[in-house]
Amino acid sequence: MKVSELGEFGVIERLATLLAAHGHAAQNERLFAGIGDDAAVWLADGHALLATTDTMVAGVHFLPDKTAWADVGWKALAVNVSDIAAMGGRPELALVTLNLPAETDVESLDELYGGLADAAETMGVAIAGGDIVRADQFAISITVTGRGEFDNTGHPRLLRRSGAREGDVIAVTGALGGAAGGLLVLSGEAEETDTSRPLLARHLRPCPRVAAGLAAIEAGIRCGIDISDGLMADLGHVCVASRAGAVVWADKLPIDAAVSASFDDKQALSLAATGGEEYELLLTGPASAMGALAKQIDVPLRGIEYDPALSASYPVLARLEIQRMEALRRGAMPL
Amino acid sequence: MKVSELGEFGVIERLATLLAAHGHAAQNERLFAGIGDDAAVWLADGHALLATTDTMVAGVHFLPDKTAWADVGWKALAVNVSDIAAMGGRPELALVTLNLPAETDVESLDELYGGLADAAETMGVAIAGGDIVRADQFAISITVTGRGEFDNTGHPRLLRRSGAREGDVIAVTGALGGAAGGLLVLSGEAEETDTSRPLLARHLRPCPRVAAGLAAIEAGIRCGIDISDGLMADLGHVCVASRAGAVVWADKLPIDAAVSASFDDKQALSLAATGGEEYELLLTGPASAMGALAKQIDVPLRGIEYDPALSASYPVLARLEIQRMEALRRGAMPL
Repeated sequence: MKVSELGEFGVIERLATLLAAHGHAAQNERLFAGIGDDAAVWLADGHALLATTDTMVAGVHFLPDKTAWADVGWKALAVNVSDIAAMGGRPELALVTLNLPAETDVESLDELYGGLADAAETMGVAIAGGDIVRADQFAISITVTGRGEFDNTGHPRLLRRSGAREGDVIAVTGALGGAAGGLLVLSGEAEETDTSRPLLARHLRPCPRVAAGLAAIEAGIRCGIDISDGLMADLGHVCVASRAGAVVWADKLPIDAAVSASFDDKQALSLAATGGEEYELLLTGPASAMGALAKQIDVPLRGIEYDPALSASYPVLARLEIQRMEALRRGAMPL
Repeated sequence: MKVSELGEFGVIERLATLLAAHGHAAQNERLFAGIGDDAAVWLADGHALLATTDTMVAGVHFLPDKTAWADVGWKALAVNVSDIAAMGGRPELALVTLNLPAETDVESLDELYGGLADAAETMGVAIAGGDIVRADQFAISITVTGRGEFDNTGHPRLLRRSGAREGDVIAVTGALGGAAGGLLVLSGEAEETDTSRPLLARHLRPCPRVAAGLAAIEAGIRCGIDISDGLMADLGHVCVASRAGAVVWADKLPIDAAVSASFDDKQALSLAATGGEEYELLLTGPASAMGALAKQIDVPLRGIEYDPALSASYPVLARLEIQRMEALRRGAMPL
């Protein structure tokens, strides 16, 4: 069988199963979380070490002819920092691996590293080393480590995919669909106008929600994921990990204003619900904690099912309903 | 200018300079060591976090037609663990990124991960996650984190490239030339015989010297590097970082017995002095500390200049001579 038939998630599951069959890491009591969350979690002394890695391959993850090298550098770091944010951690260190074709211009690398350095400064990350290898195809692979705090009983306080509980409200930071809309503009599938142009930056220069993730931890939220595969797919990851179901109401989704202005309603909804690479945080938790969090962060936090008990600045747009899981399996999801 | 004209070290130096010009990381007091040693060093609470990354690209770093996938998996982890060993640290966590062509057989991945899991068990490392991406060319990129201990004044105890001091003796673990000889056998440039066959394992299944690195720290050694580029090149890295010179006597080099038996004297010496991917440790330190270390580890430790003050079990084969640096620059290195 070829990996193309199995797909990314199929390959990951197969390799995780194979490692488990080897009895691998099962006995390592310091490995708090391995394959299956946004970042691995290692129990260091008095805190959790978080580690994540993500790769961008030219022609696969970005369009080399249409993307400035500085934007590639920015985004390659941002997508990793977002994984640390999705755990409620603080990013610290980055290692950068470049797969370089021999004919790569050194000036392009200067631009790449300019964008990378800008991102590192903005996100508070130290670029501490890496590796340079020769390859046929350009790729940039970054590993970021971060730190999660322990509670006073010595357990890590983290946003886990498995942390959703029945009755939790679901909320997302910011607004959705912008990055996917920006990709359509960049690739020429949608027209570039004054209205749609701001979407390009949403695609090219994502801003990971580190502060929101840290504030979520302080507010008592314990479930989160970053929206990299798309809201519905990532909510699906949360549901599977938490053994929960979720209801998402289409008319309550927070859609990026420029997406609404640039696309018809159906397409805008589709972009917001399924568009990837948003790097907003999807959080679930008690309504009271979510309400408190919404007041503490400077990015909009919107739920996914309307709850009149909460203020207008915090319209909750969905509710996790663990008892509905069977119904959801039969295709009863409203969206 | 193309990167092929600049080379790997040229690219690294250029990018490090560019980051420094951005003022990057200079202000981060937790970053103890960044670009320029075997692993980055971050000051965590009460210990040092070590992090390193290394990539193997098919057709560049290994011969896909002649290398079993299990060996690729083993070596991809081993070369990273060796970098942690070269800092005197204990490896802990690994993240694995696979760049996979669509036509890769899933069965090959199973073998790859079998070798990886074997290496992880042997080396005490937990495989904690990673990334799977589509690419034209197979590559495996691993990041390993590890731990270094602090001394009782709160400073990390590490093997640094910059730690060599005038009068230090230089020693290497094991014997040299085997991995380079094995590559010649594997590629068909040297004949595969009963005598040369053991060299294949030296090339395909390196065993990082974690225990020796940890023991070196305990013995008071503070300078080390792993031999990945070749003894002379890696000793050169130490000399540059330490602003020191070194003398290596050809007739005292510890040459792998199977190399001596399989190649003529000149070629054997060349393999031992310049062959890469040995993953032995090169250490420098006071003769007394090195003598103590030699008695504590179960791998031979050999110096690089004979010193009659030391026992026959520890023939010192060289001496760092900082005052000779100018002479060495003029080409006066005895080897």
